[in-house]
Amino acid sequence: MNIIEIIEKKKFNNELSTKEIRFVIDNYLSGKIADYQMSALLMAIWFNGMNDREIFDLTIAMAHSGKILDLSSISGKKVDKHSTGGVGDKTSLALLPMVASLGVPVPKISGRGLGHTGGTIDKVESITGFRTELTIDNFIKNVRKVKASIISANINLAPADKLVYSLRDVTGTIDSIPLIASSIMSKKIAGGADAFVLNITVGQGAFIKDISSAISLAKTMVNIGEKNQKDTYAVISSMNQPLGFAVGNSLEIKEVISLLNNKGPEDLKEICLFLGSYMLIACNAAKNIKEGIDKLEKVLESGKALNKFKQIIKSQNGDVQQINKPELLPEAKYQCEIYSKKNGFVDSVDARMIGEASRILGAGREKKDSKIDLSAGIVLKKKQGQSVNIGEVLAALHYNDEKKLFLASDMVKKAFCIIAKKPIKENLLLAVIDKHGITKLY
Amino acid sequence: MNIIEIIEKKKFNNELSTKEIRFVIDNYLSGKIADYQMSALLMAIWFNGMNDREIFDLTIAMAHSGKILDLSSISGKKVDKHSTGGVGDKTSLALLPMVASLGVPVPKISGRGLGHTGGTIDKVESITGFRTELTIDNFIKNVRKVKASIISANINLAPADKLVYSLRDVTGTIDSIPLIASSIMSKKIAGGADAFVLNITVGQGAFIKDISSAISLAKTMVNIGEKNQKDTYAVISSMNQPLGFAVGNSLEIKEVISLLNNKGPEDLKEICLFLGSYMLIACNAAKNIKEGIDKLEKVLESGKALNKFKQIIKSQNGDVQQINKPELLPEAKYQCEIYSKKNGFVDSVDARMIGEASRILGAGREKKDSKIDLSAGIVLKKKQGQSVNIGEVLAALHYNDEKKLFLASDMVKKAFCIIAKKPIKENLLLAVIDKHGITKLY
Repeated sequence: MNIIEIIEKKKFNNELSTKEIRFVIDNYLSGKIADYQMSALLMAIWFNGMNDREIFDLTIAMAHSGKILDLSSISGKKVDKHSTGGVGDKTSLALLPMVASLGVPVPKISGRGLGHTGGTIDKVESITGFRTELTIDNFIKNVRKVKASIISANINLAPADKLVYSLRDVTGTIDSIPLIASSIMSKKIAGGADAFVLNITVGQGAFIKDISSAISLAKTMVNIGEKNQKDTYAVISSMNQPLGFAVGNSLEIKEVISLLNNKGPEDLKEICLFLGSYMLIACNAAKNIKEGIDKLEKVLESGKALNKFKQIIKSQNGDVQQINKPELLPEAKYQCEIYSKKNGFVDSVDARMIGEASRILGAGREKKDSKIDLSAGIVLKKKQGQSVNIGEVLAALHYNDEKKLFLASDMVKKAFCIIAKKPIKENLLLAVIDKHGITKLY
Repeated sequence: MNIIEIIEKKKFNNELSTKEIRFVIDNYLSGKIADYQMSALLMAIWFNGMNDREIFDLTIAMAHSGKILDLSSISGKKVDKHSTGGVGDKTSLALLPMVASLGVPVPKISGRGLGHTGGTIDKVESITGFRTELTIDNFIKNVRKVKASIISANINLAPADKLVYSLRDVTGTIDSIPLIASSIMSKKIAGGADAFVLNITVGQGAFIKDISSAISLAKTMVNIGEKNQKDTYAVISSMNQPLGFAVGNSLEIKEVISLLNNKGPEDLKEICLFLGSYMLIACNAAKNIKEGIDKLEKVLESGKALNKFKQIIKSQNGDVQQINKPELLPEAKYQCEIYSKKNGFVDSVDARMIGEASRILGAGREKKDSKIDLSAGIVLKKKQGQSVNIGEVLAALHYNDEKKLFLASDMVKKAFCIIAKKPIKENLLLAVIDKHGITKLY
């Protein structure tokens, strides 16, 4: 077997065998296949794609390139939730206590943010003292004790995927469904959970721009999960506008606390109930969507979910006082409000532009090693479909560095599209895909 | 400008601007663009191709990545000849003295062989003392003195092409017409001649397997040359079977001497008269094909071409006695004849297999730094269309290392396809392309 022959094979649109795919991953990881050969193969895959068998083999090869977490010491069926990312997406942090408070273990491996999207690890680090760089032993201990824990993806899971992803990032080969699906699923499988609920975001603020690509990606990922004996559900949701009102690390933690106090925001609650319900279904803790939603609404009403959140924070050394008094969380020195210059209705709030503006204010990273400002960000005051009058506040920018304000505020202004006629309110939930195919289309 | 954007642009089949192509070549040469990015771009080019303008820009950017030879001190229009390579292709060595003996200067930059094809530099080094690693000054001096000289392509012409070619070689991106055409033409343009005659070989023993690809490549190369104010002719010829009878370095030199003594072989003479005639036409030394062929036949008959060959050999320190007495050239210790087991006709002699067998015997290289055996090779006794009887010799293997014999002789046997019915004799000359398009199709 030789890498040039394998590149040629994919180039001429022939199927790669299981052995060939393993050969590529093993030898790339060991350095015997050079970056320049791997990138040529990745580009050939971008053009000619991979069939389900090839994608499955690639996923398994990458998953097994490092250790597979052994979570067998945690009793019960364990569920992991993954989002393909977005702006204001704090669902993981809200879902962890909601689902765990119903007795379902949620071992969560999370990453940091890059570009215009945020990362769960950055957000949760807004809480003073909160540690995410756990040992695997401590991670498992936490899940056993409080039913949920968050660990930084820095542990050496699927190292081949990490290498391949870094290469894709600099060679224009990110946007390939076989490569995206195998990358995500290899990490999930290495993470050792028994079931997966995948939130695939689509729209302006997401990596996937159109619903048909999202469905294709969802089907591919569900197929990989099920082939690997993991119950897998994929929920496709809109990321045209940011999720909730808050964008930025500590601002989003405050919004999670608001939700856990059962105060909304409405859209965040809607998607958390829905994703959470599938997490319960996947672990046999609910028979159907309705039962799952009912159970989750009760833990929000009773304060059980909020209480579980505090347990999780405490078990990872975080300051629980900040949950009781969110004003103790990092706050930016300055705020600047953006006013509407028109009467009318919000037709859209471009999630990507809001995400970029938030990054510019310091809430996100441009490069992997950039430092972030945990208190900076944007709080929307109006969302898609709402009416607005001249002089009303559209959004508030939270910032510490005035130099960045002008560019960011300009982007926020441009992100709002205000029209005269009341628009149709856009759906947040778009489709659900499970092993039977598309089960719900909203 | 940034390389990832440029890769994405080509990936989505958009045209790259002149500035973008220059940016890529300049920054790849300086090391600012990594190999893995270049290979991703090359693969995207393999899939989406390049238009004429992009190919021209790429050629010029690579040609100007090093020095352009200044041949202005050589009087008259200078012609360079190039072949895309083949098995037993010794045309360059025969044409050099044939054309130069008619007063047309031929400054020839040649390479070494790789894989199943031979290289002019290796062949000519069979002549004791012959030096090809000349300084540019000495090369020019030789051309001024004897009208022709051969220099090794080791001089730093089109260094960006050298880098790109090495990368293509290990990333499955060799077989792309825009990349082949720009690679060849960048070196030709950097070589500084005024006119080019390109021999594009097609068939079993060539890199190009089908006539339509050959025509497409020829048109692309002629277009680049003409756009660069160089009179350019492309002759497409068959490389299904080896050219002439001899394959291997000193064996081919002997065949060149035979031709210059006007003793054939017939097919080698046919193509040399034809290519040579276009070299004369390109330099205004012949009005048409017939006049060119007449002139060249005369220099073969009169011994002028042979005499010119000796002058060239002498000017580069070679042993002229070996031209007078070819038996003084390196000779292998052993010979092994391959006999026919059938009565019938030779339907084909697979050039690639003969080339591979010759390489195995030591006449060629597998890797760039492999040593070669100048005396090893194969002499065919029968060619396509000829009748053959049981027990007649098909070919003779010349070798020094018995260990390699079994594998090579097996390949030579397989290379001959003998059938009962007399086949149609295949054409050697297939088409001519000049600035007006396809001017002749045989």
